[in-house]
Amino acid sequence: MVEQRSPRIGIIGAGAIGGYYGILLARAGLDVHFLLRSDYAVVAEQGLRLDSVVHGQLHLSNLQVYADAASMPACDWLLVGAKTTSNAELAPLLVQIAAPGAKVVLLQNGLAVEEALRPLLPDSLHLLGGLCFICVHRAAAGQIVHQAYGGINLGYHSGPGDGEAVLAEGVALLRQAAIEANPVANLAQARWQKLVWNVPYNGLSVLLNSGTAAMMQQADSRALIASLMEEVIAAAAASGHALPEGLADKLLLATDRMPDYLPSMYHDWQLGRVMELDAVYAAPLAAAAAAGVRMPQTRMLLQSLRFLEAR
Amino acid sequence: MVEQRSPRIGIIGAGAIGGYYGILLARAGLDVHFLLRSDYAVVAEQGLRLDSVVHGQLHLSNLQVYADAASMPACDWLLVGAKTTSNAELAPLLVQIAAPGAKVVLLQNGLAVEEALRPLLPDSLHLLGGLCFICVHRAAAGQIVHQAYGGINLGYHSGPGDGEAVLAEGVALLRQAAIEANPVANLAQARWQKLVWNVPYNGLSVLLNSGTAAMMQQADSRALIASLMEEVIAAAAASGHALPEGLADKLLLATDRMPDYLPSMYHDWQLGRVMELDAVYAAPLAAAAAAGVRMPQTRMLLQSLRFLEAR
Repeated sequence: MVEQRSPRIGIIGAGAIGGYYGILLARAGLDVHFLLRSDYAVVAEQGLRLDSVVHGQLHLSNLQVYADAASMPACDWLLVGAKTTSNAELAPLLVQIAAPGAKVVLLQNGLAVEEALRPLLPDSLHLLGGLCFICVHRAAAGQIVHQAYGGINLGYHSGPGDGEAVLAEGVALLRQAAIEANPVANLAQARWQKLVWNVPYNGLSVLLNSGTAAMMQQADSRALIASLMEEVIAAAAASGHALPEGLADKLLLATDRMPDYLPSMYHDWQLGRVMELDAVYAAPLAAAAAAGVRMPQTRMLLQSLRFLEAR
Repeated sequence: MVEQRSPRIGIIGAGAIGGYYGILLARAGLDVHFLLRSDYAVVAEQGLRLDSVVHGQLHLSNLQVYADAASMPACDWLLVGAKTTSNAELAPLLVQIAAPGAKVVLLQNGLAVEEALRPLLPDSLHLLGGLCFICVHRAAAGQIVHQAYGGINLGYHSGPGDGEAVLAEGVALLRQAAIEANPVANLAQARWQKLVWNVPYNGLSVLLNSGTAAMMQQADSRALIASLMEEVIAAAAASGHALPEGLADKLLLATDRMPDYLPSMYHDWQLGRVMELDAVYAAPLAAAAAAGVRMPQTRMLLQSLRFLEAR
């Protein structure tokens, strides 16, 4: 009987998301390989550090890190923590790293990100999406700060063979690392549901130059957040994805309970990096328009952010 | 035969608007008296300077300036260039300065500003409103910079006797100073029409930290401006004030032709002064709501500005 080797996991990008989940997977003894760009030298030398409200202080050195895809071993799972804006550029690297029948998981926010990447991958690869409910940021190269939550809603998008089995396998893999993973039957719906948080908080944090706490405390910004949430919920419903009753209230409450948080888009903006405007704003706006629904507040947010980015 | 004395004009506030029109009226030889607060000492000593694209460099010294209303002579016309936010506080001073049957003119933007002031004035005073189509700002105490335009649409609000005659008298008075004054039959409509410019540019200049030129050049902000204009136009129509066809295009074109301009609200924000959010945003939103019309973008702008002001 041939011993089954443990699955080899490639983490693409070790920013906040890739770093956090990569550390947890590596700590659990899984065979994790990191493909890094700007942070390669620092992480190769010093490893990854996690300062976590849940896991305490972790420091993993002697990690398997790579600066280029060509030197990586073939991976069975590829967890993409890079930004959606680099997906097209990453696609050939994913193909290069992927073992036969590998599973690519986009740990990214936004709508239609799998649809955009799918044509760039061979049919032999599975494609999944993971929605990360987590407050985490990269304080510096190789230094991840985890403030709250940490679960992943994992959904299967497309690929050869039995998607349900692949999804179950992915959930089990993440749970091995004590990651609270949950399978979702409808990935598009899960993406809409995640957008109900991301659409207001990501953009408003940039536009109002504020973390979540101040925006939740002031009555007008709080009302605006709630109103943006309802706009996304209505667009989701019109697009065929009715979301759970009371979702906006639930998310407002969850945000009240979070520490003051600066979403990833705020960090992107502050650091002069490109913001994920297409995945988080343009894609849902296009879907809503196709369903005959207007999202005037969401559109205004996108227009304002595009102006700021163009400056 | 008794010689009719020339009308005595009180200018309340010598910021951008009060300063600009006050200088022109004084230059024309009219009997102008300025009531000043923070700028009193500087103007009393150095006079008022105007740097104008139309009138060149003007410097008027030996002006009739006052630090308190009690020392002013009774005025036949009171031109209020102060901000709407101080109207309630100004009302007793206006009453104190007003000659019998005086005319109070609010040279202010926003909706329902006369309605708010009217109950604080005796019935014996006339109340008018003037919409100033002008790019002007106060560079420093007593120093006014005039960048473009300069006309006033003057409308009669309420008072004893013949409003039409009072309006004609006011127009004639302003024209004596080469001010392009035009009588408007419907003041509320004129206020809505002015808001079509103020609603987008005033708030967005603060929110996007930008003058008009950059916002007009970038496609998204330009589309947002146009869309806000259409929202105001629709609210005006629903409130019974149909505005001229093609107004938004006309205003966009006029703004294209302006030099880069920072609206008054931008200066207020930068200097930590209170912004005219009630007159420019809350009042039209309330009027639209009463007419059953939503203004989601205008509301979002107000909510964002209130958040910024509250910080």
